[in-house]
Amino acid sequence: VENRVVLQLSRPITDYTVNSARMREDFEALSEIGATPDDGVDRVALSHQDWQARLWFADRVYDAHLMQADDDAANLSGVLRCRQPDARTLLVGSHLDSVPNGGRFDGAIGIVAGLECLRTLREHDLQLPFHLELINFTDDEGTWHSLFGARAVAGMLPPDVTSEARIENAAFSAALARVGLRLRDVVSARRDPASLAGYLELHIEHGTRLERAGISIGVVTDIVGRTTYDIVFHGAAGHSGTTDMYKRRDALRGAAQFITRAHDLVRARYGDGIFNCGDVAVEPGKYNIIPSKAALTIELRHVSESLMSDMEMAMIQIARECAAVHGLTVDVKPVIHMPAAAMSPAFIQTIESCCDTLDLSHMRLVSYAGHAAQVLSQITPCAMIFVPSTGGVGHAPAEFTPWEDIEAGANALLHTILALAAAE
Amino acid sequence: VENRVVLQLSRPITDYTVNSARMREDFEALSEIGATPDDGVDRVALSHQDWQARLWFADRVYDAHLMQADDDAANLSGVLRCRQPDARTLLVGSHLDSVPNGGRFDGAIGIVAGLECLRTLREHDLQLPFHLELINFTDDEGTWHSLFGARAVAGMLPPDVTSEARIENAAFSAALARVGLRLRDVVSARRDPASLAGYLELHIEHGTRLERAGISIGVVTDIVGRTTYDIVFHGAAGHSGTTDMYKRRDALRGAAQFITRAHDLVRARYGDGIFNCGDVAVEPGKYNIIPSKAALTIELRHVSESLMSDMEMAMIQIARECAAVHGLTVDVKPVIHMPAAAMSPAFIQTIESCCDTLDLSHMRLVSYAGHAAQVLSQITPCAMIFVPSTGGVGHAPAEFTPWEDIEAGANALLHTILALAAAE
Repeated sequence: VENRVVLQLSRPITDYTVNSARMREDFEALSEIGATPDDGVDRVALSHQDWQARLWFADRVYDAHLMQADDDAANLSGVLRCRQPDARTLLVGSHLDSVPNGGRFDGAIGIVAGLECLRTLREHDLQLPFHLELINFTDDEGTWHSLFGARAVAGMLPPDVTSEARIENAAFSAALARVGLRLRDVVSARRDPASLAGYLELHIEHGTRLERAGISIGVVTDIVGRTTYDIVFHGAAGHSGTTDMYKRRDALRGAAQFITRAHDLVRARYGDGIFNCGDVAVEPGKYNIIPSKAALTIELRHVSESLMSDMEMAMIQIARECAAVHGLTVDVKPVIHMPAAAMSPAFIQTIESCCDTLDLSHMRLVSYAGHAAQVLSQITPCAMIFVPSTGGVGHAPAEFTPWEDIEAGANALLHTILALAAAE
Repeated sequence: VENRVVLQLSRPITDYTVNSARMREDFEALSEIGATPDDGVDRVALSHQDWQARLWFADRVYDAHLMQADDDAANLSGVLRCRQPDARTLLVGSHLDSVPNGGRFDGAIGIVAGLECLRTLREHDLQLPFHLELINFTDDEGTWHSLFGARAVAGMLPPDVTSEARIENAAFSAALARVGLRLRDVVSARRDPASLAGYLELHIEHGTRLERAGISIGVVTDIVGRTTYDIVFHGAAGHSGTTDMYKRRDALRGAAQFITRAHDLVRARYGDGIFNCGDVAVEPGKYNIIPSKAALTIELRHVSESLMSDMEMAMIQIARECAAVHGLTVDVKPVIHMPAAAMSPAFIQTIESCCDTLDLSHMRLVSYAGHAAQVLSQITPCAMIFVPSTGGVGHAPAEFTPWEDIEAGANALLHTILALAAAE
């Protein structure tokens, strides 16, 4: 017990702030890596640009006298070590990768803000009661596998993703092999939950709730669950002119009614639910032949697991009704199921009181996009800090967040780390 | 006036019948040309198989001591000449070509029945007051251009079909060139309407109305008009999870509602109308992106031109409403317009009284499929005789008509020719 590190501050709490100018230099430098002509970035996971960004990150970790670490899922970290070797680790995470032709802010601000927090704490020579690890997760955006690095850390990658025997994994396996990693070893990246003190992430809001409310900090309470289904309606092809209008088994007619009813139902009965149908594949697909097959993938999101189940059941019911009405059969197959995740209530309150201390406006909100915290909440307490995104633009070159919001977000992150350290 | 030929029969009218066994030999021989393993035929227009069938037809014309004729649209005829050179011509038409992997009956029975009628009349040494021409129309099925030969005869081919300057026509031009024809000369195939006494065609019913009613002969009153429109809904792409559910501009949602409403409206308000939507092309077409574009082609058929117009206006109105409700814009572009065609009332009555004479059951019906008569009715009185098609199968190897129905149809055709000759 005597060995236990206790946080001791030598100055008033509000004196601790990030170096905004230095953080901005980092942000500008990172934005150059994979820069596109229209001010976006293209740093898809495991690409040349992604590796350039990682090298840049490793240099910053070195310059800041932090410890560098990596794992078998190609996650790359800078660590401010606790002097107590068996201390737990507080993870601060984000990602350097982007979607194809993405924006400069998504992921990047989490890395530069985290880096700035570690540097600031080190410069103040503060002794923290946990290892503080800034982790860059591999393939957050899902170029290969959505939230790959985070799922590896959580030990939640299914065997088909890590199997070297599957031909579908050959390219991914080769991409990892180029940096000396083997797909079969990815499972070693799993962390023992007992070794973790929690997980924090700063990210842009995908949406306009903060901007519209004129509020600086979003405190995420939940990340929505996401489920997808493949739904295929089967009817009978026929001559579009001569088949009896009242005896047609038109697969597209059933699919169209399903899409219409599904959209209407979600809006009428599931206020916080999200529904998307992004495509329909019709066969034989000729203007003068009655469609025999209409295949679609639907995506459902809900913050409540029980309402999500309810919504899923309702969708399957509608699909069956639309099929029955039009003499069709329907196949319904679940594909992706990412459960809804609640953030830690204690962490939420900690962030809110830090914002109050810093005089930053804040509001609670739900994340309708997936994030690493969704996965990591299965093994450790998590929290997310959102900053506004102008016009809600995301995953596009026009993505933009005012710098003062990023600075505010970084200070909220810094103070949350301090508060968690004080409470440890 | 003294020169005028008047039909004189030497025997009771019911003594005149086709030679069913000989006609069947022709049918079996023709079915061998382009035969497919599953008892269908593949004789797409201007293919090697189509030319084989034409050579076979030319041989039968020669054997029957009929005059052979052709024109610049590759239509091929056998003619029973009237001894009066300036007499008008009664056309009896059909087609030797098929859809890809089609059936043995569609088109073929019109040729063999017409051939048998000309042979029978010649054997009885009857003098007709018109030239009787059995014409095989080029590309009835639209491998290159739907109803090409008939439209050439009617002088209704648009300039873009016959332009040698258009790159789209290069293959068709080459196909014609192989038999010494030039695309630019196709216009010469046009006939002077004053030279024609009318047009008759025997064809299988595309549908099951005759079969269900247990009736041998369908007397076509009208051929439906057909109109197609390209309809494109434009919305805005966006993240499927984070875009406000109430602010989405989902192009597929608008298109799905349109398809549903259009199907419902046609059934509710246009009892004889036909609607088909055979495909939807969605962009960007990803399950987790809100559709920004949904393009579809709709096809409308109606036997009444005025109700067709009414139905078209209603469709455009629905498209605009569905766009407006979902914050979309919509482009509506007409593509094909084939007007509805009424058959000759005098010819209809003639066929009916011939059926009564022959003790054949008959009913009036509308053709929901397009036929050469649809085009030729613009320049001369037309009539069509339908025979049953088992199960309504058409354009497929399983196409089947009982032989006694084909024999009945051929006799109805023979007697209609005799009755028109008597009335001339």
